[in-house]
Amino acid sequence: MNIENIVVVSPKYKELKQLIQSKNVEKNFRFLPEEEATEEELDWADAFLAFNLKSDHDYSRVKWVHSLGAGVDSLLFKKEWDENVLLTRTICSFGQRIGEYSLSYILKDLQFHEQFDQQQKEKNWQPITPKLLSDQKVMIYGTGEIGQVTAKILASLGVEVYGVSLSGKQKEPFKDVMNVNEHLSYLSNVDYIINTLPLTEKTEYLFNENIFKQVANVGFINVGRGRSIDEAALLKALNESQVRFAVLDVFTEEPLPKENRLWEHPNVSVTPHISAVTTPDEAVECFVETLKNIEENQPLPNKVDIKKGF
Amino acid sequence: MNIENIVVVSPKYKELKQLIQSKNVEKNFRFLPEEEATEEELDWADAFLAFNLKSDHDYSRVKWVHSLGAGVDSLLFKKEWDENVLLTRTICSFGQRIGEYSLSYILKDLQFHEQFDQQQKEKNWQPITPKLLSDQKVMIYGTGEIGQVTAKILASLGVEVYGVSLSGKQKEPFKDVMNVNEHLSYLSNVDYIINTLPLTEKTEYLFNENIFKQVANVGFINVGRGRSIDEAALLKALNESQVRFAVLDVFTEEPLPKENRLWEHPNVSVTPHISAVTTPDEAVECFVETLKNIEENQPLPNKVDIKKGF
Repeated sequence: MNIENIVVVSPKYKELKQLIQSKNVEKNFRFLPEEEATEEELDWADAFLAFNLKSDHDYSRVKWVHSLGAGVDSLLFKKEWDENVLLTRTICSFGQRIGEYSLSYILKDLQFHEQFDQQQKEKNWQPITPKLLSDQKVMIYGTGEIGQVTAKILASLGVEVYGVSLSGKQKEPFKDVMNVNEHLSYLSNVDYIINTLPLTEKTEYLFNENIFKQVANVGFINVGRGRSIDEAALLKALNESQVRFAVLDVFTEEPLPKENRLWEHPNVSVTPHISAVTTPDEAVECFVETLKNIEENQPLPNKVDIKKGF
Repeated sequence: MNIENIVVVSPKYKELKQLIQSKNVEKNFRFLPEEEATEEELDWADAFLAFNLKSDHDYSRVKWVHSLGAGVDSLLFKKEWDENVLLTRTICSFGQRIGEYSLSYILKDLQFHEQFDQQQKEKNWQPITPKLLSDQKVMIYGTGEIGQVTAKILASLGVEVYGVSLSGKQKEPFKDVMNVNEHLSYLSNVDYIINTLPLTEKTEYLFNENIFKQVANVGFINVGRGRSIDEAALLKALNESQVRFAVLDVFTEEPLPKENRLWEHPNVSVTPHISAVTTPDEAVECFVETLKNIEENQPLPNKVDIKKGF
């Protein structure tokens, strides 16, 4: 594939320009803020790069679309995609980032940060013994790059890690990988659930009453997509203690609307979609690597499988 | 060494009795609450076990004293010990526990838990990018079992870990180990300090103005002993931002007196000496292993070096 003209669309287009120029990529570039990207740009370009890929562009005019973030559901979820157009996305350090995010909230729970904080306010010296990671069982939904790196981080600290995927294919370092249909009976033994799944027609509202009624006292962490959760079912499970607490980084609507009940629930932690931020540095590094792989006809580990949707 | 009669003194003596009996140790035992242990018990016993070894007993009447906890400073710090009496202590899972405790507070900081918690209260959706462990430098004081396991946990997650010890002897996985006299110039580059040192005459008030004036914006975690810290110097360093925050699990006086200013300092987290709790299970396991080593004339990795004081 011959790539000469590249359009980069982002609110951070100036910073991206500087970073890409420092890499000496010998291509023709146009750097633009999001609102200035028109169909004319698409006519000129061989490749189109953006953090937020708007679904109203006609991408069949270019050869390659590259997402500077990890998610491509804005283009594929319940939409058609011209399979002649190569679609790639940024993976890079997401596994590490999501792993550290998830680990931080598991440790917060095991080390009783909230309880000790409350006791400090009361000047109350009341020992509680922290729990060890090696006594915990975690179920990770999604065994791709992100789920796998998260699993490696947890397993290296002694956590017993199970996986759920479409295929149920076994993978290191998961103790067992189950498919979505057969995993329900395992859920009652699990201490924490981490969802890393992309949004596809198969994962929409996957976390509904069927799943929540199987768990007991579980910590639920969502770093995948908000729309994989049936919010009403989650709130019910929180109120009935099937879910002991939820840490949510992604939501059906972002920013999370002020009237949403999740903001105020005492057992919910809301973070503003930061568990897998791509820094401009990382985005540029991943783009340069992908371009190199394309030009050298190398395999593209970050190529999106249009049928799967990720 | 022939050990037949063993006294076990603890508020949890009933639980310890049950656990030790389940191990089928063929010795004569007496299990007592702390206040009932008299000199008569010491006359009968070959070995004396306790969580809190009181300094007013005459331990020269027994052959072996075993601490069911890690610290033995109550017996050795500025006191005489009869070197004919073997002194051992519980090490076991302390490294893992202290490592997880320290990691939890480093991740709390890197993942901006407090900021996001505050923003949630305000329903404020304001992304801040978490920092990665692989960009952090940590200095661990103490490169023994506890410091080393803590270092392994952090290094396995990409942290650059340095050590400070009496000898300055190099050890895996520390990138460099310095001795106490030569390390000051390294401190300005460090993001976090973790103190795991025991209390000895060499570590008393080690963390004084000399150290705190070298650091900038550091996170300080004390899991060693409270008396290794010059509290006034720490408060000054907190107020002048050399120390950005302190997480303190140990104090000169425990429980921490209600009038102590640390309770109320906004950048101090107080926990009630829980980072390296020995559970009765672990204490018994370690005792049984030590007894076996003694009887089989095996090396005792948990034997206290009386001169060093740990």
